Amino acid sequence: MELNRQDIENLEQRYRAALINSITGFKSVSLIGTVNAQGDTNLAIFSSVVHLGAHPPLIGMVVRPDSAERHTLENILDTGYYTINHIRRDFYMKAHQTSARYPRNTSEFQACGLTELWEEGFMAPFVAESTVRIGLQFREKIDFHINGTIFIIGEILHLHFPIECWEKDGFVNLEKAGSITCSGLDSYHTTQKIGRLLYAKPNLPPGLKD
Amino acid sequence: MELNRQDIENLEQRYRAALINSITGFKSVSLIGTVNAQGDTNLAIFSSVVHLGAHPPLIGMVVRPDSAERHTLENILDTGYYTINHIRRDFYMKAHQTSARYPRNTSEFQACGLTELWEEGFMAPFVAESTVRIGLQFREKIDFHINGTIFIIGEILHLHFPIECWEKDGFVNLEKAGSITCSGLDSYHTTQKIGRLLYAKPNLPPGLKD
Repeated sequence: MELNRQDIENLEQRYRAALINSITGFKSVSLIGTVNAQGDTNLAIFSSVVHLGAHPPLIGMVVRPDSAERHTLENILDTGYYTINHIRRDFYMKAHQTSARYPRNTSEFQACGLTELWEEGFMAPFVAESTVRIGLQFREKIDFHINGTIFIIGEILHLHFPIECWEKDGFVNLEKAGSITCSGLDSYHTTQKIGRLLYAKPNLPPGLKD
Repeated sequence: MELNRQDIENLEQRYRAALINSITGFKSVSLIGTVNAQGDTNLAIFSSVVHLGAHPPLIGMVVRPDSAERHTLENILDTGYYTINHIRRDFYMKAHQTSARYPRNTSEFQACGLTELWEEGFMAPFVAESTVRIGLQFREKIDFHINGTIFIIGEILHLHFPIECWEKDGFVNLEKAGSITCSGLDSYHTTQKIGRLLYAKPNLPPGLKD
């Protein structure tokens, strides 16, 4: 199938959204936990979390302020803290349900059947069902004027993951942790390892790490 | 395992890079094809491609200017065009090999054994081995001063994918197309569908789409 810019423009809106959301490839999928200054918690599913750098440890994500994601953004700006919680197969339906447009005073934790977990000294709720959990401090907000989306940068203050998933070079084996991936707006997938490859050098052929 | 900000700071540099690069979840992984004004082609693997919006159809990606990615950035700014090409299992080792630091005058297409594909009227090379290919026009460059990375926004001008992967609601089935995912700096994975879920609404329980 070949589509040009005009073909894409001519597609019906929801059809185009499904197409463009899927075409970029498989995505990270996680639950963002936040709370407002009044103590009302919020939980929202995001598939735009992206690695920004390791030193300092920074993570970025794209937020659409006109969507169910707007409460997440308000809470992050309000308190300065948020959590990223990986999704496993055994609760992916509950995680997806957080994308419904619940009213401001409804917590998706309760509405979707997920459990708040509070760590000593950290001001945002984690998801107890997640085995990979990241606590972040808000660092920067960048407005993408081109389409009104917002890019949020946070610094990792806290990491939790199963110790048996930590490999000898520092890599965390997410497949072993049960983290899943998604594509498009609503498709969820487990993964199966092909291989880890050696650091590539111009004069060496590619090769498996183990 | 529990790590706080100071624990992360104390890790050896490459160990920390492996940890932080893996902890954000599974990622899209694709080859970015570019050419400079002199006609020298370049190909580089990226795992930071992220959906920005469907209308207009925009894709973002993070570039590290001190890495093998710097030639990609120079070429995009030079010509204004680039391509995103999904990676399949049958050539993932060649794709990974493009991350080696080849000199400026070496094309990774030739060095890594991948095939340039030129579409009529489009000024950047696609990868013939890819079955999902996106042609983009550069729209915006945003400097993330916090760590010196750069965010590139492009608009989709051209899409190619196998027609049998296009589902009735507009979704492109990437698993059927053979696109793979990655985690960390060097781990590659195929996917296995769990399910597609219905659009979530507050008063409906989550459910499978098909």
